[in-house]
Amino acid sequence: MLYIFGHKAPDTDSIVSALAYAFLKNELGKEAKAFRLGELNEETKFILEKFKVEAPELLESAEGKDVVLVDHNQFEQSANGIEKANIVEVIDHHKLKFSWSKPIFVLTLPWGSTATIITKLFELKKVEIPKEIAGILAAAILSDTVIFKSPTTTQIDKEVAKKLAEIAEIEDLEKLGIEMFKVKSKIADKSVEELLKKDYKTYDFKGRKIWIAQIEVVDDEEVLKRKKEILEFMKEFKEKENLYAVILMVTNILKEGSTLFLVADEIQPFEKAFGLKFEEGIAWATGVMSRKKQVVPPLEKIFS
Amino acid sequence: MLYIFGHKAPDTDSIVSALAYAFLKNELGKEAKAFRLGELNEETKFILEKFKVEAPELLESAEGKDVVLVDHNQFEQSANGIEKANIVEVIDHHKLKFSWSKPIFVLTLPWGSTATIITKLFELKKVEIPKEIAGILAAAILSDTVIFKSPTTTQIDKEVAKKLAEIAEIEDLEKLGIEMFKVKSKIADKSVEELLKKDYKTYDFKGRKIWIAQIEVVDDEEVLKRKKEILEFMKEFKEKENLYAVILMVTNILKEGSTLFLVADEIQPFEKAFGLKFEEGIAWATGVMSRKKQVVPPLEKIFS
Repeated sequence: MLYIFGHKAPDTDSIVSALAYAFLKNELGKEAKAFRLGELNEETKFILEKFKVEAPELLESAEGKDVVLVDHNQFEQSANGIEKANIVEVIDHHKLKFSWSKPIFVLTLPWGSTATIITKLFELKKVEIPKEIAGILAAAILSDTVIFKSPTTTQIDKEVAKKLAEIAEIEDLEKLGIEMFKVKSKIADKSVEELLKKDYKTYDFKGRKIWIAQIEVVDDEEVLKRKKEILEFMKEFKEKENLYAVILMVTNILKEGSTLFLVADEIQPFEKAFGLKFEEGIAWATGVMSRKKQVVPPLEKIFS
Repeated sequence: MLYIFGHKAPDTDSIVSALAYAFLKNELGKEAKAFRLGELNEETKFILEKFKVEAPELLESAEGKDVVLVDHNQFEQSANGIEKANIVEVIDHHKLKFSWSKPIFVLTLPWGSTATIITKLFELKKVEIPKEIAGILAAAILSDTVIFKSPTTTQIDKEVAKKLAEIAEIEDLEKLGIEMFKVKSKIADKSVEELLKKDYKTYDFKGRKIWIAQIEVVDDEEVLKRKKEILEFMKEFKEKENLYAVILMVTNILKEGSTLFLVADEIQPFEKAFGLKFEEGIAWATGVMSRKKQVVPPLEKIFS
């Protein structure tokens, strides 16, 4: 039997690609089963429930198994015991860092999601995609391409998602995408500390220690309603952690920009760096989506 | 422009895959050109002349170029300056040992030749294969699969070659294969020293140094006519090189076996090892095709 799985800390694309590819293999007369290498995230649970598809089982070890890697190719991201598995295929949309002891079927494409590639393989093999599989495949494309807004999105992802939406009778893909991201980015039940520690990096600019956290949302209201609570906690946090500044980027993936929350010893260098005016510690930065590319470089420049 | 090339020391599959894939790219509206990374062998020259296809130019360096690797994926086998090229695609049938800085189109399949994969890509892209391209693709499959006798041969290689033969109006694929191998294995103009040094390995079995050379032929006559000359030279060679034994495997890829020429201090251990009787230093070994798998292990056993 083929054991098919995506990467550790699975996202929707990893889970869905494994499920859909296992289905395709079965249709082609090959015994195959999808597995997961970790807990499902809220988005994936929502999607599987919505389209009534059963979640894959957890795989403890790949040792001695015939395996297919989807949505990853590096051993560090793969199952325990992968070195002692028999790798039969690899299907992925990430950069390759892979070597194996014999020739096998490996397919990588620079597309927005592995789900897009899997859908193309259904077409290639002339296997009909059932409604529920089409639904989760469409959702996986929406998830991995951030509703077609990620720079990794290709025309093919859009075309394939549209076709899948027809099969799955999804009337409005964007609406489904927003629903999914609301589930994913639900922050109402999160403490400010959790928001600051969900995805952060710290930097040291000539002795100035800055904490930059980022969360992704599909609407800003939920966060802006809590702005007083957030800024007060950020102040305490800054003192406690002995920082020069704390920044929380609330990135709105639909509006394509970020609300920046700032608590700092001096505000002025930040206003100069970003070319923005902070009102009560808050500023809207149009087009700013990337901490690494759009927030860190101007700070590096101003503090150097 | 895309620079498309196979491996260093190019064989027919490398040259033909590059030529055919460049043609396909051009048909799809992409500027592309095939290159070679070394001198053409006699077989490839014969094939290109036969089907009236121009040989690709030599590529001195891949630095700064947009490149497609066919029939190889390891940098050691690739063009000078490959680390400083922009690799756009990889299409191969060898085992992978590849990493790159970004996601690209990589396709490997465990098939008998890269030419088989390229032919499938023509089908996938619904591009008609011209007669002369079909001819060289069929020849490349014959070459890399040793006329479908190599253990790497798949059913797909056979089917694809048959289809290509129809397009190219090749009446008898096997006959073409034999012609090609005659060109490749022409030994009439080679000295015995050249035959012994074309493809050899030396072994040391507890102080007994044995030289094992192998050549591939499609008929034995040419060699057997020269048996006296060969055995005499082998005797001199053994003394000069201070060896315990010299073996020349003349492997007939059509009859699937080898004529073994043997000059040694003692003949008896070899007869015992192989279960053969040597007559005047010569024996026919049915089914023996592989030095590594079928000749070395019994010698290792008998001399241990």
